[in-house]
Amino acid sequence: MTTYTAIGRSMLPPDGRAKVTGTTRFAPDLRLPEMLHARLVISAHAHARIVEINTAGALAVPSVVAVLTAQELPEIAPKNRFRLLLARERVIFAGQPVALVLAENEAAAMDGAERVQVNYEPLPAAVTLEQALAGEAPLVWPAGLPGVTAEAQAHGAAVKDGQPEEQKRSNVCDRHSFSRGDITAGLAEADVIVERVYTTSRVHQSYIEPHASLVQPDLLTGGATIWTSTQAPFWIREEVAAILGVPESDVRIVGTPVGGAFGGKFILYEPLLALVAQRVGRPVRLVLTRLEEMVAGIPTPASRMRLKLGARRDGTLTALAAELTFDVGCYPSPHANAAFLLGSFYNIPNLDIHYTEVLTFKHSAAAYRAPGATQPTFALESAMDELAHQLALDPLALRLKNAAAPGDLMADGKPWPSMGMSQVLAALQAHPAWQEREQARAAGRGVGLAIGGWPGGTEPAAATCLLNRDGQLQVTIGSVDLTGTATGLALIAAEAFGMAPDKVRVINGDTASAPFGGAAGGSKITYTLGPAVIQAVREARTQVLEIAAEEFEADPADLEIVDGAVQVRGVPDKSITLASLAGKTMGFGGKYAPVVGRGRHLDKTASPGFCAQLAEVAVDEETGEVRVHRLVVVQDVGRAINPPGIYGQMMGGAVQGLGLALYERMAYDESGQVLTGSWMEYTVPHADQAASLIEMVIVEVPAEHGPFGARGVGEPPIIPTAAAVANAVADATGRRLTDLPMTPERVLAAG
Amino acid sequence: MTTYTAIGRSMLPPDGRAKVTGTTRFAPDLRLPEMLHARLVISAHAHARIVEINTAGALAVPSVVAVLTAQELPEIAPKNRFRLLLARERVIFAGQPVALVLAENEAAAMDGAERVQVNYEPLPAAVTLEQALAGEAPLVWPAGLPGVTAEAQAHGAAVKDGQPEEQKRSNVCDRHSFSRGDITAGLAEADVIVERVYTTSRVHQSYIEPHASLVQPDLLTGGATIWTSTQAPFWIREEVAAILGVPESDVRIVGTPVGGAFGGKFILYEPLLALVAQRVGRPVRLVLTRLEEMVAGIPTPASRMRLKLGARRDGTLTALAAELTFDVGCYPSPHANAAFLLGSFYNIPNLDIHYTEVLTFKHSAAAYRAPGATQPTFALESAMDELAHQLALDPLALRLKNAAAPGDLMADGKPWPSMGMSQVLAALQAHPAWQEREQARAAGRGVGLAIGGWPGGTEPAAATCLLNRDGQLQVTIGSVDLTGTATGLALIAAEAFGMAPDKVRVINGDTASAPFGGAAGGSKITYTLGPAVIQAVREARTQVLEIAAEEFEADPADLEIVDGAVQVRGVPDKSITLASLAGKTMGFGGKYAPVVGRGRHLDKTASPGFCAQLAEVAVDEETGEVRVHRLVVVQDVGRAINPPGIYGQMMGGAVQGLGLALYERMAYDESGQVLTGSWMEYTVPHADQAASLIEMVIVEVPAEHGPFGARGVGEPPIIPTAAAVANAVADATGRRLTDLPMTPERVLAAG
Repeated sequence: MTTYTAIGRSMLPPDGRAKVTGTTRFAPDLRLPEMLHARLVISAHAHARIVEINTAGALAVPSVVAVLTAQELPEIAPKNRFRLLLARERVIFAGQPVALVLAENEAAAMDGAERVQVNYEPLPAAVTLEQALAGEAPLVWPAGLPGVTAEAQAHGAAVKDGQPEEQKRSNVCDRHSFSRGDITAGLAEADVIVERVYTTSRVHQSYIEPHASLVQPDLLTGGATIWTSTQAPFWIREEVAAILGVPESDVRIVGTPVGGAFGGKFILYEPLLALVAQRVGRPVRLVLTRLEEMVAGIPTPASRMRLKLGARRDGTLTALAAELTFDVGCYPSPHANAAFLLGSFYNIPNLDIHYTEVLTFKHSAAAYRAPGATQPTFALESAMDELAHQLALDPLALRLKNAAAPGDLMADGKPWPSMGMSQVLAALQAHPAWQEREQARAAGRGVGLAIGGWPGGTEPAAATCLLNRDGQLQVTIGSVDLTGTATGLALIAAEAFGMAPDKVRVINGDTASAPFGGAAGGSKITYTLGPAVIQAVREARTQVLEIAAEEFEADPADLEIVDGAVQVRGVPDKSITLASLAGKTMGFGGKYAPVVGRGRHLDKTASPGFCAQLAEVAVDEETGEVRVHRLVVVQDVGRAINPPGIYGQMMGGAVQGLGLALYERMAYDESGQVLTGSWMEYTVPHADQAASLIEMVIVEVPAEHGPFGARGVGEPPIIPTAAAVANAVADATGRRLTDLPMTPERVLAAG
Repeated sequence: MTTYTAIGRSMLPPDGRAKVTGTTRFAPDLRLPEMLHARLVISAHAHARIVEINTAGALAVPSVVAVLTAQELPEIAPKNRFRLLLARERVIFAGQPVALVLAENEAAAMDGAERVQVNYEPLPAAVTLEQALAGEAPLVWPAGLPGVTAEAQAHGAAVKDGQPEEQKRSNVCDRHSFSRGDITAGLAEADVIVERVYTTSRVHQSYIEPHASLVQPDLLTGGATIWTSTQAPFWIREEVAAILGVPESDVRIVGTPVGGAFGGKFILYEPLLALVAQRVGRPVRLVLTRLEEMVAGIPTPASRMRLKLGARRDGTLTALAAELTFDVGCYPSPHANAAFLLGSFYNIPNLDIHYTEVLTFKHSAAAYRAPGATQPTFALESAMDELAHQLALDPLALRLKNAAAPGDLMADGKPWPSMGMSQVLAALQAHPAWQEREQARAAGRGVGLAIGGWPGGTEPAAATCLLNRDGQLQVTIGSVDLTGTATGLALIAAEAFGMAPDKVRVINGDTASAPFGGAAGGSKITYTLGPAVIQAVREARTQVLEIAAEEFEADPADLEIVDGAVQVRGVPDKSITLASLAGKTMGFGGKYAPVVGRGRHLDKTASPGFCAQLAEVAVDEETGEVRVHRLVVVQDVGRAINPPGIYGQMMGGAVQGLGLALYERMAYDESGQVLTGSWMEYTVPHADQAASLIEMVIVEVPAEHGPFGARGVGEPPIIPTAAAVANAVADATGRRLTDLPMTPERVLAAG
């Protein structure tokens, strides 16, 4: 067995102290000379024609410098949400930016925004899935999505017998299916069939730090430098450059430390702000208010899922038929993997899964931790539990019996790569909380479990590596550190070089200084950047050994790196510290070329991560309140590079899973107004409802291509929580809750 | 003959437009939130004991936040000028910082500085070379240089017959010699001997932008980020880290666009400001005033040079004896190469050259364009001219006859590498200005020539190279662009890759984002970084071809890069633009690893550059004014990568050469006070005295190891100007001027 000296040891994130002492500068903390503060004027209607915008009142506010509307901006086809910019003629959701006020200070910008008068002619809006799918529903995009080719639009049309249906405009923006075997026969084979409709709510990512950006326009090139709280600096660079009409090299994106993102911070208002800053010729800062986050942000879609799951008496699954309908708001949203995942977790010979994505007059949806996985897992794992109950089988054994293993086929017919679904279930089976479930039941509690997985992302990634004169190894990557990945990469670099982890600096560079690193999303930074870092570090190591070899007139093969020094094996006085060696590569008297390694990586095989959870709950029969007493989180992480970082991900994901299960829902009234405009109306789990009751178990099934076997860990722990809690509620009360969140009202109503 | 598509073509610097439109942000333009403005309180005495510093009056000024003295700073051995920080007990030059006032705005800082009362007890000061060398001279460092070992100090002691003289403290801080052959015999062999004493003045680099720095302290690590106008970010990083007592990795130096440096901006007050910012916990900005530049800056040393140069009747040089004495102010200064260069330009069998560096109670000297070369070249080339006159030989032919060539020995006994001294002289010989010198004489003008060379610098250097999604090649280096080197490197990269130069971006990164690049000084950025850039670009090119080969299922050897696209030779429709190829290496759908090249370089062979100049002058017999009518600058640049950039260097150097020749002198009164505290008293050449009269000729003798043969070009053109003008004055008037600058008073006095 390989012995590691760095990975697997606990390392606290080097930026932690700055964060807890308030020293970290987040995007909202940044200031530039001549900077203007922006405030959005947002639509009061879900659907309306803009008759007139009167900016006189706003302009009369002292310190207000400009009020911009779509008229002042170039006309750009709004083919996606971040190109919607400011509303032109029509608004399609309540909260849509209609104008933007710029002022010398934030208070004036806010005053100004309140004084912009917009005269609307309200139009009928389809706010719910039902309304949007109705025959004569008003269309979000009556002429089709702007700037998208007819061919691409057809892709979203219904397909029947392999032929596209006759095209008729509707609010449906995507339809696709997965099928396998013979669904009718499969259902007929089943001894028991569970059929249910499940729904999930729109949920906001609810990071503490709102969207925040600061744009410095470059008036000569037409480009810009943008400091922004984002997961994807290179994506923003690409889009901003396209919208400004300049080469990407004229745009520089500096990803600032992120105060929470969870999928919601890829790109949003950066292109608008870049245009605005170019227009006014001054730096522009926009930090969303919580209300703006709630009405003008990009939450998750709501979903309605009808499942029919059949099994034979022995628990063998025979068929899964499903119709998933996602309410994505005013733009398509990348949740198409929902149907794929639903059909992939278990070995089911007969599948018939349909996915329909529907546009509504609401703000568009975006990713939220495990996008497209949380919803179908809630449905599937609830159905699995009910099936076990009806068959009087052990629900864990039922899952183990049917669980997919590496090589088994996923819904798309491709084989699962290395993954640990069964190992995770087995680890949960061995856990005291499962073993002692009868004691919990005796105490009036219910115990439920669920499992879910995330397929893992892949993306090209690169890294560079330098040896500094202080003997520290500097690794530069182009991705932001969302979740402590930089700490894990430091451990990986230390392991690959053979040095102490605290002598490694991982720099999350900006788009002008770092090689491409990929977006921090999809549970893939460690998985994709890890190998690039290893390669860069090993190159640097080779160079270091070559220099030392020349210095000692020795063979590089006879050298070793011990305690920050290169030494000739067996000749202790032939030793040079990395600091002195680096010193010989810098400065006028330098004897050797500087140490510079580079790593480039792409692996198209992803690293799926499975997480099983067990919830132990008590239900207050009087109030309907579900109180979680214990939440066990078991996850396959491939290799735990930095255990505290992984525990942080597991706990954070599970806490958010509890939010999905019990608390979080964006509510809209019938006209499409958001009713949950602040954290007074929108509930997230509190500390006493979460962290203290979570127990975590790490399982390590090495990912074949992962750095030291590591696989992505961010997404999995949010996936099964809602189903585990629902199953525990059913166990405690006999009531099957099918709608998220499971609020006390719903629990009582289910009684 | 190789045909080049990029190098040798003229390219204007991409940052030129920003500079001429005032868009560039220089260090003085930067602001940070909570920033404090610093002002120095400077010593009124050249030598004094500090009895008391009363800060009460300053602290009473509204907006003054703090007044710091040495007491508030850690005690650090002031072993060099930038560690002198604030005076502790004693001041050793008029202008030395004694205290530092911090205020919310610059006006308050200035008011505060004026209200700090320092009570001095004046002490006797040695201000001139004569005073400093006198028997009982007051010593600048009575106990030796602080923090320097006794051994190192002994290095500066006089050496006699190979044995160090008995050590006695003096103001002499360096002595060394070069000798060859038998000087007595050599002088005896000579038919003619010229013996003279020459002097040069202290000169200020007189950049337009003064020293300017802004420090953001990192209160957690104890480190800092410093934006500063510097030639040497990595050097500052090293020193600041040492002084703050933190690893270098905790210090980040961002070299801002430089508004002139010329050797004077390696490092000065950055360490002091870093300590001050740490002390007060806020960002601190210091922009020197012109007066502070003049009294607290780091000008060039003054020199006194006694030469005896002998030759046979046929012009063969037989002996050179010389004593060079440099007045470097209160610290040693790197001008030791003066003696080396003096003995290297010509093949002289018998040499005896002594260099003595003397400390005086004045601000310490630093480098100024071709440090240590301008002074001896003035002496040597004046003597050569006088020798030619006395021997009635053609002064150009005399030089050609004795000029060193590659392989000839330099003063240190090592052979000259490839260089073009003779070729430069030959090109000047062919120039109309030399051919038609009799016409000029007939018009009452004098014609003089001189030649000088710069040995060239070497330093390790590295570069990285990325391919951006817009098809642009991004080259990152850790050096600042002082003189348009980034433009030349863009041409080099374009040539190496095979693409249009305007598709190359050269990024001058900061010390945390770029690999080590070396200081921008010594005429070596293009020479040392060029090969690193070529290597990095070629690596990237190989990767690009490999990707295209995989895309086309072709052999990389069958591919070519034409017009920004990779194509299969002879198969025009198998072509992919660099932009689309790069697109395949970035983003979620990426098919290939990102393109990342890296280059590492060190070559210990330097690239000497020679420059010959011809001056045509008229001397006003009434006023003594020397009016230059024509200045021909002929220079060996190895290979002219970017001709306009090179012409800029040649012209700029020659203009500064005219300043040395005719105008520039820092004057001190007998107490050591600077009399030339502004550009009212200190004269630099005006536009009508310079640019319009300069003619330039490029000679290309390829440097063996230079990128495409290029050699350093920055330093040479300042070197021979003063001698050329002096020789022209002698030609016009018969008067031999031996003291720089040749002011009207001196011209009249020589009459």
